[in-house]
Amino acid sequence: MSDAAPDTPEAIMDATDSALCEHGYADLTMQDIADASDKSTAALHYHFDTKEELLLAFLDHLYEEFTDEYATTEGENAVERLVGFVDDVLCRGDIEGDEAFQTALLEIKAQAPYADPYREKLAQFDAFVRDRVEEIVADGVAEGTVRADVDPADTAAFIATLIDGVNTRRVTIGETDGGTRRTFLAYVRDHLVAAGADVEVEP
Amino acid sequence: MSDAAPDTPEAIMDATDSALCEHGYADLTMQDIADASDKSTAALHYHFDTKEELLLAFLDHLYEEFTDEYATTEGENAVERLVGFVDDVLCRGDIEGDEAFQTALLEIKAQAPYADPYREKLAQFDAFVRDRVEEIVADGVAEGTVRADVDPADTAAFIATLIDGVNTRRVTIGETDGGTRRTFLAYVRDHLVAAGADVEVEP
Repeated sequence: MSDAAPDTPEAIMDATDSALCEHGYADLTMQDIADASDKSTAALHYHFDTKEELLLAFLDHLYEEFTDEYATTEGENAVERLVGFVDDVLCRGDIEGDEAFQTALLEIKAQAPYADPYREKLAQFDAFVRDRVEEIVADGVAEGTVRADVDPADTAAFIATLIDGVNTRRVTIGETDGGTRRTFLAYVRDHLVAAGADVEVEP
Repeated sequence: MSDAAPDTPEAIMDATDSALCEHGYADLTMQDIADASDKSTAALHYHFDTKEELLLAFLDHLYEEFTDEYATTEGENAVERLVGFVDDVLCRGDIEGDEAFQTALLEIKAQAPYADPYREKLAQFDAFVRDRVEEIVADGVAEGTVRADVDPADTAAFIATLIDGVNTRRVTIGETDGGTRRTFLAYVRDHLVAAGADVEVEP
């Protein structure tokens, strides 16, 4: 049992995270989540009627954490901040340890067409990523490190698609070799960085 | 009932396709597939012991169709063939009609970490796409339409990742607006096409 009172929303979210990583989404039951929190299912049902409701609250919780963590990015210029943001979002530090979580998330993504509330939450995550990238790229155009003819919104959609691709491949074929990152850096260097800008894009 | 004898492998594959698109993967039963073929589950079980075995045969069948269909691509030069190949693989002609199938496929992809045989088949699809792109890009370097410093294998991995991203987003957030294609064309134009090559990259 964790230190937090296990029927607080925070403790339920931690238990949901553990249970999802252990069992995956498809087979997950309220009992699994109760077991991960050392509590009864009755305590969970006090807060959430169904597994879907609990999972929606969990996606909300992830969204809060995600947007807090990635609201700002360090870097000397916009290009460095862009590469740093993409690395952060892709959890470069723990790309293999993250597999169980990414698998559960992909299962939830695949349920989106059957469940509008899931799709709405996932669209919020996506809008956050695109907004952040668009903002960083626009900063780069303004400061002269990114080419003036680069469209920030188009670039943001492109990079969000790449991120989704990397996350899908990590689950589907177990690809964690970072090959896409190398080509992403080449894309940034050749396609985004303004001619003559004093910017280093290094692995 | 279709014209083909409904217990032939081909008819079972057609029924599997229909049933997957109607019910999705998670809820799919042998009975659903039998219903779609107007046959008994006993007829299916004569060929396949479990739903997983049948689905593996279905993935094999898709792989045969896919690799037959996309083994060659028309185009005046390698750049045109590359854009044509990506468009073909993304089923541009019917990007919305394709949603039910893509949803079922993403459900299967999310099961890959739990089922090695699924992962192996999916890795075969991916290897085919990467090999084709690598071959086309290498042709482009040889004929002078693609920049000499472009790495065909890295570019192939990058494009395979983009394709996975587009397919995931189609299912997850219902994105079918083609915005990524526009940026992909800009990437091809700015990053791949050799300086001075007589190549048009137009939407």
